[in-house]
Amino acid sequence: MQQFGSIRVRMVGMVRQAQNTICKALEEVDGSGFCEDEWQRPDGGGGTSRVLQNGRVFEKAGVNVAIVHGTLSPESARAALGQGREVGSQEVRFFATGVSVVIHPHNPMVPSVHANYRYLEYIPTHGAAPATWWFGGGADLTPFYLFDEDAIHFHRIHQQVCDRHDTSFYARFKAWCDDYFYIPHRGERRGIGGIFFDNLNDRSPETLLAFVTNCAQAFVPAYLPIVMRRHHMPYNEAHQRWQQLRRGRYVEFNLTADRGTLFGLKTGGRIESILMSLPLMARWEYDAQPAPGSEEARVVDILRNPREWVPSSV
Amino acid sequence: MQQFGSIRVRMVGMVRQAQNTICKALEEVDGSGFCEDEWQRPDGGGGTSRVLQNGRVFEKAGVNVAIVHGTLSPESARAALGQGREVGSQEVRFFATGVSVVIHPHNPMVPSVHANYRYLEYIPTHGAAPATWWFGGGADLTPFYLFDEDAIHFHRIHQQVCDRHDTSFYARFKAWCDDYFYIPHRGERRGIGGIFFDNLNDRSPETLLAFVTNCAQAFVPAYLPIVMRRHHMPYNEAHQRWQQLRRGRYVEFNLTADRGTLFGLKTGGRIESILMSLPLMARWEYDAQPAPGSEEARVVDILRNPREWVPSSV
Repeated sequence: MQQFGSIRVRMVGMVRQAQNTICKALEEVDGSGFCEDEWQRPDGGGGTSRVLQNGRVFEKAGVNVAIVHGTLSPESARAALGQGREVGSQEVRFFATGVSVVIHPHNPMVPSVHANYRYLEYIPTHGAAPATWWFGGGADLTPFYLFDEDAIHFHRIHQQVCDRHDTSFYARFKAWCDDYFYIPHRGERRGIGGIFFDNLNDRSPETLLAFVTNCAQAFVPAYLPIVMRRHHMPYNEAHQRWQQLRRGRYVEFNLTADRGTLFGLKTGGRIESILMSLPLMARWEYDAQPAPGSEEARVVDILRNPREWVPSSV
Repeated sequence: MQQFGSIRVRMVGMVRQAQNTICKALEEVDGSGFCEDEWQRPDGGGGTSRVLQNGRVFEKAGVNVAIVHGTLSPESARAALGQGREVGSQEVRFFATGVSVVIHPHNPMVPSVHANYRYLEYIPTHGAAPATWWFGGGADLTPFYLFDEDAIHFHRIHQQVCDRHDTSFYARFKAWCDDYFYIPHRGERRGIGGIFFDNLNDRSPETLLAFVTNCAQAFVPAYLPIVMRRHHMPYNEAHQRWQQLRRGRYVEFNLTADRGTLFGLKTGGRIESILMSLPLMARWEYDAQPAPGSEEARVVDILRNPREWVPSSV
């Protein structure tokens, strides 16, 4: 167990550093500062939520760290662990730490972005079964208007990080991302993806910690160049309307399909930190359809039929 | 089974008439007209959606009728029927018809409102078990600023309708409404309630059809006088911001807790008709709290601690 104690400490250090680095980079672009809330979890642990609202560039940005522990019912433990993994019929003691980033910019030409990197351990209260542990995470882009070079840049940076660790990672995690961010009732994905992985424990914790550390470090170089290229572009009310309609779909995904959000709501997580992912404004018009052949229709087509943005690594 | 064929036909007539009456009344107040979409359900039946968007008084109003039939998996049949009722392990043939009303006005001084009246039948494909049938429905008010006389009026009209059929109905259905429209992760109700009932089949279908018919007829006298009293009241951006924040909670309820919405999304209902209930605009600010002692704080307090608006019937 010694190695896991060390992994916990190093992962906590990593998520705190990622929070600092990302907030600093966003503050430099925006000119305004994040507000910070420290919170305690009644059942164990707590976190630090940092929020920048109504900035110059960012309408709403949140960068959260959580370091929590306690017990989960077998049902909750199973829900968090996902399909096909056994947790037994007892309550499960758990430890979890992670960093979450959600950024909704003002300008509809700048995509929203989300990233999350996390480490979890289940420690059975009774019995000699070994602890279950795993890493999860990913980063994905949600454009309202799509500039192909932005999508290519975001995917290429993540492909490069993946390739440094395993040339099979990017293809696998890119496909997993397209699957995960699917809104079944719309037949669309939330955005144009990136990478997503969960329940990763098929190599040593040190190896996987190094991988998620590099992924978290890739966030700023993957996203900020896109912000810099787009945030001065002109836009009008029609662009904003489309942005808000798409943000409605973002809300639909997060409240009906996102396992992390639903798990948080059901297990009594800190609501304001969980729902910080929701955009400032969202819009629902009856049967709003983009005009055929429009830029908006092109985006929807790609959300229905995901593209390969970079050539295969192998 | 003859009586049930007749109930179906009479209920369909009732929901169509309710749709006409309600749309006509709303059009008279608003000055603009509803648009109508007829839709077919691939697996059987269809419906008529009527929508008024961006009117003079109403930001978004929908009045839908559905008359659908087909088969449900045992899981879906159980989900629709709710706790403690047996559906067996076979697919279930069903018939359902109902009218749904959701109205989101522009002026934050005018409450949003929702009503739904429905009749369902399950007809086992195999076996001699009798058909399960039931009525469900209700009407509830979602104010952003609360004028007590509006809440009292809305509840009193529904109490009067209930009392004509059974003096125990109002107290039961008022409490059921407060329970149903609860948002667990917020510890709040969506609005100040009204009446709600489901799985109602403890007296003859004719008796219950007469009850839901009277309830549906009560919609216009329960809601429109409130609109007339409030829609000319002045309001400012701060009132609108609060309205949009509360509409965010409306979205949270509908997408995470409303059984009808989730059932519709999971069983492939017509998405645009199901999600027509969502407001045009909703807003999420991080940790937005109304000032202590404000009008906004008073509303939240009532959503946390439901009131009795009218003296008991008995």
